[in-house]
Amino acid sequence: MKRVSASLLPPIALDPGADVPIYRQLSEWFRRAIVEGQLQPGQRVPSTRALAGELKVSRLPVLSAYEQLHAEGYLETFTGAGTCVAGTIPLGAPEKPRRGRSNATPAATSPARRIAARAQAMAGPEQTWLESQGAFRVGLPALDAFPHEVWARLISRHARRVDTESLVYGDPLGYLPLREAVADYLRIVRAVRADASQVMITTGAQHGVQVCTHVLLDAGDSAWMEEPGYPGAHQALAAVGAKAVLVPVDEDGLDVAEGIRRGPEARMVYLTPSHQFPLGVTMSASRRMQLLQWATRAGRWIVEDDYDSEYRFGGKPVPSLQGLDADGRVIYVGTFSKVMFPALRLGWLVVPKDLVPAFCAARDALDTCSPMLPQRAMTDFIREGHFARHTRRMRALYAARRAALLEAIERHLPGRLRVVGAEAGMQLAALLPDGMDDIALSRRAAQVGVSIRPLSQCYRGAACRSGVILGYGGVDARAVDEAIRRLAHCL
Amino acid sequence: MKRVSASLLPPIALDPGADVPIYRQLSEWFRRAIVEGQLQPGQRVPSTRALAGELKVSRLPVLSAYEQLHAEGYLETFTGAGTCVAGTIPLGAPEKPRRGRSNATPAATSPARRIAARAQAMAGPEQTWLESQGAFRVGLPALDAFPHEVWARLISRHARRVDTESLVYGDPLGYLPLREAVADYLRIVRAVRADASQVMITTGAQHGVQVCTHVLLDAGDSAWMEEPGYPGAHQALAAVGAKAVLVPVDEDGLDVAEGIRRGPEARMVYLTPSHQFPLGVTMSASRRMQLLQWATRAGRWIVEDDYDSEYRFGGKPVPSLQGLDADGRVIYVGTFSKVMFPALRLGWLVVPKDLVPAFCAARDALDTCSPMLPQRAMTDFIREGHFARHTRRMRALYAARRAALLEAIERHLPGRLRVVGAEAGMQLAALLPDGMDDIALSRRAAQVGVSIRPLSQCYRGAACRSGVILGYGGVDARAVDEAIRRLAHCL
Repeated sequence: MKRVSASLLPPIALDPGADVPIYRQLSEWFRRAIVEGQLQPGQRVPSTRALAGELKVSRLPVLSAYEQLHAEGYLETFTGAGTCVAGTIPLGAPEKPRRGRSNATPAATSPARRIAARAQAMAGPEQTWLESQGAFRVGLPALDAFPHEVWARLISRHARRVDTESLVYGDPLGYLPLREAVADYLRIVRAVRADASQVMITTGAQHGVQVCTHVLLDAGDSAWMEEPGYPGAHQALAAVGAKAVLVPVDEDGLDVAEGIRRGPEARMVYLTPSHQFPLGVTMSASRRMQLLQWATRAGRWIVEDDYDSEYRFGGKPVPSLQGLDADGRVIYVGTFSKVMFPALRLGWLVVPKDLVPAFCAARDALDTCSPMLPQRAMTDFIREGHFARHTRRMRALYAARRAALLEAIERHLPGRLRVVGAEAGMQLAALLPDGMDDIALSRRAAQVGVSIRPLSQCYRGAACRSGVILGYGGVDARAVDEAIRRLAHCL
Repeated sequence: MKRVSASLLPPIALDPGADVPIYRQLSEWFRRAIVEGQLQPGQRVPSTRALAGELKVSRLPVLSAYEQLHAEGYLETFTGAGTCVAGTIPLGAPEKPRRGRSNATPAATSPARRIAARAQAMAGPEQTWLESQGAFRVGLPALDAFPHEVWARLISRHARRVDTESLVYGDPLGYLPLREAVADYLRIVRAVRADASQVMITTGAQHGVQVCTHVLLDAGDSAWMEEPGYPGAHQALAAVGAKAVLVPVDEDGLDVAEGIRRGPEARMVYLTPSHQFPLGVTMSASRRMQLLQWATRAGRWIVEDDYDSEYRFGGKPVPSLQGLDADGRVIYVGTFSKVMFPALRLGWLVVPKDLVPAFCAARDALDTCSPMLPQRAMTDFIREGHFARHTRRMRALYAARRAALLEAIERHLPGRLRVVGAEAGMQLAALLPDGMDDIALSRRAAQVGVSIRPLSQCYRGAACRSGVILGYGGVDARAVDEAIRRLAHCL
């Protein structure tokens, strides 16, 4: 065994004023020195008395540190030889930490830091313009019109009502009374056919789509995706290593015949039939039936994302695809983010009955269950009528905001921005003249406090249209005109 | 075009007392009849006047329903020919709904209802005995000793403090002040080396492990798993279609040399070095260094699940593996479920700096971000000292409960139940005589109100040991003796 004098120890810097006690600073120093190879297996270390003297500290913390290091197996003592670094410690220190790692170079560039190929594919489009908190941010409701006091009262009520069920791991499907309230609501408002046993509470639409892709698709399987479509759905598809079959959307919604031609083998279809994201069209009755018939005949699954079905301005709400499905082919995805507020993280899935066990298993594997407190408050918010009242008020408010937006576009951008599909929801898409760079435009707009989402980012194929997606839910009607005026300047 | 007299319509049953208005009942009936092929494309339907007369309702709801069905494309009107089912509706109804689907047969049994192969693999072990709310439920803290009033006050405080950040979509990494509090806590208590930029707030340890498997593993990749090990980690592995390499655990923890022999190509190692689940052993210093050296040399990732590191009774806490890692190989997983309560759904990941962008992208793809309210309350709970105070109190309480349990086992089951690894955490494992069926025992125990988890379920390989895992965190010391007496009767 190599014997090294104690004076050859690398320097130890102790900080008596630190949060971490001296004995812990010492034991951590030793561990690190051993791991990094500065102290070698078999190397002798100073006696506790000598080290305490050298460091000018009491002997107690040194004893304490040595005791701990013995217990963990870093040090060992031989009669006569004193205390040494344990001989069982493997020789050869790990390589030195690479310099400048904190200046995060993308992990994938070094083979030694290879991560899943899927990780790259899961990334969404660049979103630098979202830095702007200005007008037209997509997905933002009228937060100033939300009944915060009512909600705070319900949250406080349930924070104080503590029972075992409010504390332990919950049902992967969620809190039963909330599932019942959601089933009732969807039955009446969206013509969804389901009872509470088929409802799973999720942490939002993205999470819901993710659970679907995990249950329905293996790596290498393919799924129809709307082109243009919702980038988040592509991310959820990438999360399971599945492939997208891009199916074009026209004024009748998803082109089912084209889908059958391009991807007859696809195991799943993701679509937004009530209010297509981003174009805003509503899927026609004949396309709906074509899709259901194909799915039934071929044994395929349909994921219906009804992300903002609460708000519709032209005509009556179009009922869900799920309600037309007689063969249990549709998984229905919804969220409270748009009616309530995004940071709540509550949504739902409606699952065909025979798939419920598989969805429960997936939920258990992915994240166990949803937190209980917001589920209880949400149940009361619906049962006590606040939800229906708020939705009704928002429908009028959003109609006014939408009208103000259409008017402002007509005033400041006549003929330059062509609005498509503005009949529903909290956002509309508008086309720019062909060839215009909508990403560059969104960057310029962000600089003047206008947050627009470029339409071209919703395309995955080669052919894409240039345009902007304008969220009007969170923009006061009085601010709309000024924001569009600024956008006109950017054009 | 086929002309069918209106009197040939299938019967329509209206319910004037229902939540759903008459016009909606009517339009839904028509949609369904068309979808199910009872009304064929081109078939004539009664005039609004005739139908209203036949149904003995006012003409208004019938007009309203027809208008909606026209708008959606189900009906069309020709001058002279009256109103017909639209000719664009595809012929041939979907197959009849299968009978008895509600009596959920597993989806996988029918090829037409095939789901992902992964879905089967994601299922955890059967848990019928968890129906019992009795003693020894694993993972349950002392809920009666939690400072509920303090927590309710903090929740109410933040429910009332509404600002934009508390409402909109959050950072995928989580609320910055909470990430700072977690980084400080881990640095001081677990010798973790990280700043807030590397901390991601999750919805618990299971969710954290899931995010890791998604970033690190592609389908078909393999990962070392402890044998026996945590079933939830196997579920998270299955969620990405990765394969487990079973690596045995002995009294020094994971057998690293054996792991290198069995799975040199594995991309990831999942382990519980501080308090192995379920055996309770602590990984030795030499094994830790062996593992870090191999991971650095071979370019592998280590997921360190430190699920219950807060509580340790023999000796001082063993510092984390993450703190010894000089090459950014370790992703550190933790949870608030054990110190706070499981229904809170809050945990954390500590991620090597260069992997932060990939983890953010994955989080965005999987479920966007964590809800804001509990993050803010948790920040105050830590910053105001409640967390440290509660952990300290629980350490004393759990030590007493653990002592009572060991004593009761000694009294009622001397020589029949051999306790292993009881130095830390909130549970211990105890071995049964070889060949005894621990699953059957856990069923019998559930019937007398004792909830034990069979050890054999933590094994995935052929050779497995029989035993029980006893969670003592949630069991009053006075109730322990009686519960063990009952368990002895079951044996």
